[in-house]
Amino acid sequence: MKRACITGGAGFIGSNLTDRLSANGVEVVIFDDFRTGRREFVAEALGRPGVSLVEGDVLDVALLQEAFEGCDWVFHLQANADVRRGLDHPRRDLEQNTIATSNVLEAMRANGVSRIMFSSTGSVYGEPELFPTPEDAPFPVQTSLYAASKLAGEGLIEAYAAGYGFTGLICRFVSILGERYTHGHVFDFFCALKRDPTRLRVLGDGRQEKSYLYIGDCISAILTAAEHHHDEPGAHIYNLGTEETVVVDDSVKIITEHLALSPDIEHTGGRRGWTGDSPLILLDTARIRELGWQPTLTIEQAIARTLEWLDSSDYAWREQLVGGVPS
Amino acid sequence: MKRACITGGAGFIGSNLTDRLSANGVEVVIFDDFRTGRREFVAEALGRPGVSLVEGDVLDVALLQEAFEGCDWVFHLQANADVRRGLDHPRRDLEQNTIATSNVLEAMRANGVSRIMFSSTGSVYGEPELFPTPEDAPFPVQTSLYAASKLAGEGLIEAYAAGYGFTGLICRFVSILGERYTHGHVFDFFCALKRDPTRLRVLGDGRQEKSYLYIGDCISAILTAAEHHHDEPGAHIYNLGTEETVVVDDSVKIITEHLALSPDIEHTGGRRGWTGDSPLILLDTARIRELGWQPTLTIEQAIARTLEWLDSSDYAWREQLVGGVPS
Repeated sequence: MKRACITGGAGFIGSNLTDRLSANGVEVVIFDDFRTGRREFVAEALGRPGVSLVEGDVLDVALLQEAFEGCDWVFHLQANADVRRGLDHPRRDLEQNTIATSNVLEAMRANGVSRIMFSSTGSVYGEPELFPTPEDAPFPVQTSLYAASKLAGEGLIEAYAAGYGFTGLICRFVSILGERYTHGHVFDFFCALKRDPTRLRVLGDGRQEKSYLYIGDCISAILTAAEHHHDEPGAHIYNLGTEETVVVDDSVKIITEHLALSPDIEHTGGRRGWTGDSPLILLDTARIRELGWQPTLTIEQAIARTLEWLDSSDYAWREQLVGGVPS
Repeated sequence: MKRACITGGAGFIGSNLTDRLSANGVEVVIFDDFRTGRREFVAEALGRPGVSLVEGDVLDVALLQEAFEGCDWVFHLQANADVRRGLDHPRRDLEQNTIATSNVLEAMRANGVSRIMFSSTGSVYGEPELFPTPEDAPFPVQTSLYAASKLAGEGLIEAYAAGYGFTGLICRFVSILGERYTHGHVFDFFCALKRDPTRLRVLGDGRQEKSYLYIGDCISAILTAAEHHHDEPGAHIYNLGTEETVVVDDSVKIITEHLALSPDIEHTGGRRGWTGDSPLILLDTARIRELGWQPTLTIEQAIARTLEWLDSSDYAWREQLVGGVPS
């Protein structure tokens, strides 16, 4: 890998990948519109030789084409990640996740770039009956617009792999935690407790089991798979996660203990936190482990690391406290 | 079922569905832009009470909304069905199959219409390893832009079922044959032999095994499932096909015997006729059979019926003979 473009390169995962690739001597083009990406996350990286920025929208194919010039990989991490509120704006997932992915693929094809890594999601499994859920689980039924739009992106990449000889690395993530984490339920609980330390509202019955992965481990897994398949066109699909889950109420406990608070906990009830929420997420990660990768942090350690980062980076959440409940 | 809109209502499947619904006393709104639909196919139906036409493009959401007024079902059959040449125009499948489906769903939501039947395809199974292939086969990898765009449409419908309480009937078709059939390999072979009766070029090695279903049986299956799930919101997925396959070379033989020709057969070679072609298609249809449906014609009978129709309807293929090989 010599030169890579990272769409969403100023976001949570993208900026961490930027740092790692740049440290490994890879030239990095950060492509971001800073809608959710943050300038603070890439300020340092942009001071290093070989790191550059193209500021713009993934719906702008000409600009994507410019950004991909001379790259041997595209890491397509840009996405609408507002999983929970998909039903409030049903076209957004289609545009930001599906059409944007088509644009990226077309811009690659125009430039002769044929290696793409795509950030998909464990939620493409819908509500699986098989745990841990393997990559070839029974053909799922989609339960959210977010997952449906990501599945559509996967399908496009697979078709480009079959039809144009692309190398398509599809990573189905669990929720990722760690430095620069700025959305998701640990973030929401943290902000809610900063706003009102006496009570905490938990969506669902609090018994939902979620799997998480530490951002540093996520980046290592992506690069392990990318290096492994560098010269192997085709579609390569990997679950990325840990082999454990944490119950929502237990992660609440970790957070309240970290903050030394004893809020009243209110559960909104129901097995799902919202329509499309999965009561249990646990991915089978045997495939990525076979490449020699393994996570270095447990979920509890990853939550602790996240809370430490939030403590030290109030620019990342202070503004959230103004506009009401962020969940 | 009282009033239904059929997108692609002047096409092969759509016009047959129009006739059947109208005969059953259902009011039908035919929505078609006549890009591939044919006025001849609906001329008679449009003379019947309760059948009307809205002429326009599925990318026109306002017009869709108008067409859906007062309907209790939408049969979304409009599609780009040029499976084979997807790689020549990679945006067309996305626009005509995925974005169009999103438009249909949004127009339904705006009108309070919540029952949709969607014409998907057995090719969403990619190259399965399990035959006959059931609806919950292992999570497939897409091999064509056509199938990827249809899978994306399925995902959207499933997400609308989960999120907005829609009833989503997804039918994964094998190739359909019969009256008004105007594309696909029987059609291509027929036209090629009309052009040059002395030779026939067959894509692939001729050993590909395909499954077909007679149009009359297809319509019965769709309506059996629609009636069964009329009052049952959620996603309902059915394979539609027969329990047999026919080898491409054998269907060539049926066609040449029907035309009383003995052309030289040339195979282009390879297991696949084109990139994304499946060497073997055979769907498990136990699920639709459990509702009491079964096909009335064998594949051989369906091919014969198709050839008889082509013989009697030269308006449907005569123009194809001008522009060179239609495949």
